Amino acid sequence: MRTQVAIIGAGPSGLLLGQLLHKAGIDAIILERQTPDYVLGRIRAGVLEQVAADLMDEAGVGQRMHAEGLVHSGFDMLFNGVRHRIDLEKLTGGKKVMVYGQTEVTRDLMDARAAAGLPTVYEAANVQVHDFDTAKPRVTYEKDGQTHSIDCDFIAGCDGFHGVCRASAPRSAITEFEKVYPFGWLGLLSDTPPVHHELIYVNHPRGFALCSQRSHTRSRYYLQVPLTDKIEQWSDDAFWAELKRRLDPEAADKLVTGPSLEKSIAPLRSFVTEPLRFGRMFLAGDAGHIVPPTGAKGLNLAATDVKYLSNALIEFYQDKTEAGIDNYSERCLKRIWRAERFSWWFTSIMHNFDGEGAINGKLQQAELDYLMHSEAGLKTIAENYVGLPLNFGE
Amino acid sequence: MRTQVAIIGAGPSGLLLGQLLHKAGIDAIILERQTPDYVLGRIRAGVLEQVAADLMDEAGVGQRMHAEGLVHSGFDMLFNGVRHRIDLEKLTGGKKVMVYGQTEVTRDLMDARAAAGLPTVYEAANVQVHDFDTAKPRVTYEKDGQTHSIDCDFIAGCDGFHGVCRASAPRSAITEFEKVYPFGWLGLLSDTPPVHHELIYVNHPRGFALCSQRSHTRSRYYLQVPLTDKIEQWSDDAFWAELKRRLDPEAADKLVTGPSLEKSIAPLRSFVTEPLRFGRMFLAGDAGHIVPPTGAKGLNLAATDVKYLSNALIEFYQDKTEAGIDNYSERCLKRIWRAERFSWWFTSIMHNFDGEGAINGKLQQAELDYLMHSEAGLKTIAENYVGLPLNFGE
Repeated sequence: MRTQVAIIGAGPSGLLLGQLLHKAGIDAIILERQTPDYVLGRIRAGVLEQVAADLMDEAGVGQRMHAEGLVHSGFDMLFNGVRHRIDLEKLTGGKKVMVYGQTEVTRDLMDARAAAGLPTVYEAANVQVHDFDTAKPRVTYEKDGQTHSIDCDFIAGCDGFHGVCRASAPRSAITEFEKVYPFGWLGLLSDTPPVHHELIYVNHPRGFALCSQRSHTRSRYYLQVPLTDKIEQWSDDAFWAELKRRLDPEAADKLVTGPSLEKSIAPLRSFVTEPLRFGRMFLAGDAGHIVPPTGAKGLNLAATDVKYLSNALIEFYQDKTEAGIDNYSERCLKRIWRAERFSWWFTSIMHNFDGEGAINGKLQQAELDYLMHSEAGLKTIAENYVGLPLNFGE
Repeated sequence: MRTQVAIIGAGPSGLLLGQLLHKAGIDAIILERQTPDYVLGRIRAGVLEQVAADLMDEAGVGQRMHAEGLVHSGFDMLFNGVRHRIDLEKLTGGKKVMVYGQTEVTRDLMDARAAAGLPTVYEAANVQVHDFDTAKPRVTYEKDGQTHSIDCDFIAGCDGFHGVCRASAPRSAITEFEKVYPFGWLGLLSDTPPVHHELIYVNHPRGFALCSQRSHTRSRYYLQVPLTDKIEQWSDDAFWAELKRRLDPEAADKLVTGPSLEKSIAPLRSFVTEPLRFGRMFLAGDAGHIVPPTGAKGLNLAATDVKYLSNALIEFYQDKTEAGIDNYSERCLKRIWRAERFSWWFTSIMHNFDGEGAINGKLQQAELDYLMHSEAGLKTIAENYVGLPLNFGE
């Protein structure tokens, strides 16, 4: 087999890249270790920046997003018992975000790929990347008891944090930066109407909480929990009771509870790999970097990686220039570190770090109090939340 | 002996309070453990916010400050090899700061107190505060082999971090918040012209540095050093060589070196006591709170405490109301926590915390890079540096 770009991973990054390359007439094969249902079953972020929403349009898959997605022009921050609205639209001169689940993004991209008859190999076992330090990289995998090989021009590593691509880069060429947080997020998905028409981020002495949503009838809630907690310890009733404790009385009163569709505990991590290019192999999305979920930057960063990577590959084939490829890593990392910074900060300011001393909670309250009363402070939150402009700082 | 207000400590807080009370016709005696020369020998901060400068005028001691102090409308931040100017005046709509050493502030207040013939007892040993939970507090001390007692209406604890007042408050009534930093500041004072007409705050892989000044001919420089360093390890030559390494080439070239007038290592600490009032005893300045020196908030916070305390006492005597006294602690603590937050943040962003993982340095660079390119980000630095308005958030 031969293709121009072998894409490893059929999550949103890989699928979006495949779609953008297809639009430009570039061939790609996507290899995915899991089944389509498994990929769709992963519940992740649900807030798209304008840049990411635009990219869905550019890929020709934005129709359902515009019909079903919810445009939010603000969100609430609740601390010291009081809710403060961050008016994104006013503070950023008109920018908003789109609430549309990663599962839906993935489904739309999958459907478009299937409709176009583009090749995706699901349940590809033992995927291996070869010779990406030469002009003739190769990918091998096993399926149905047979070993297959794909010759290609480029390998796109869209295979997530635990994927094979980053693991195959030479150790001496790679630097990894990591911070692990001393707590996890317990998430619950339910077919109940959201407690509020916008998101509520909660700083509470008992720990962080987030009231998020997927639609007018589907809610996603999170609780900060110790990393030692097991999911079996958390009945639905226990979850709802704890969530109510962390909300203001009005929200607690309004909260509609119901059976969970999904419930899981995820650790929080900040992680960046440098560089993101190794010869003819590129890392995009979670394969290269992880943000803690506070502020929903993960999918948005992946989308920008893919935008830069697809541009670079299209320029390579159409304009015969390697400039985009050569700039890929540096260009992405600038944006990545800014989002890592914001995600780390938003996590730090909203979670309970009492283990590190009582003064931390007081400094948090002082910072939140300052920010809510400073126009400049509010703007720093808003402009990062909606996503800094692509040309920021240039 | 009897007085209306017994002030413990003849540092800038105690002296300023004495002066403001005197202007309002309220009697006070100041007790100080050390000699005047010892008090003047302590080299401390050198940047006054407008609020503090105004208070010097209000106390009638602003003349020399206006003649000799240097008005600064900005400062530089140096990181990743590049200097960025924070234009305080432009970013805050006209606010500036005054470079005038704490030693000079103290001297002006001392001179004014002596000229007015107001009582200050230096070398007062074994100062003790009594009965401040009643309407008839009492202070005792020893001098020249005799024990003296002062009856008073109020006790003002302006006796610093290690003073007797906070230590005498009932443990059950007090909450203390503290953060100790894993490094110190090595400071050097010299009669050399400042390397730059404004201050330079330096974030360097080898550690923080600060180029500060007291006048056009006297400079004050600082280096972040490990807490384990001893002052004997640092010759003047070693200091200058290390400072040059942390500066940009232009500044390193211009740096004029010379013999040190003073050289010392100070630890960095964030510390707040709650509350600041215990019956008829009040804590002001370092007796109640410490900030790390980055951003020079210590003396300025002390000045605001004294402003609120003198107002409260004047209202008590003139208007027969206890409202100001009752509000003193809460009112001060709001401003204190905001300054603690800024000082902690400015310390965190500018120092080397490599011991906590390499990702911290990357997040620092990302934050600095973001702030320098965001108008809102720059404003958050500037408005805190010049001092948030007294009515901020009200």
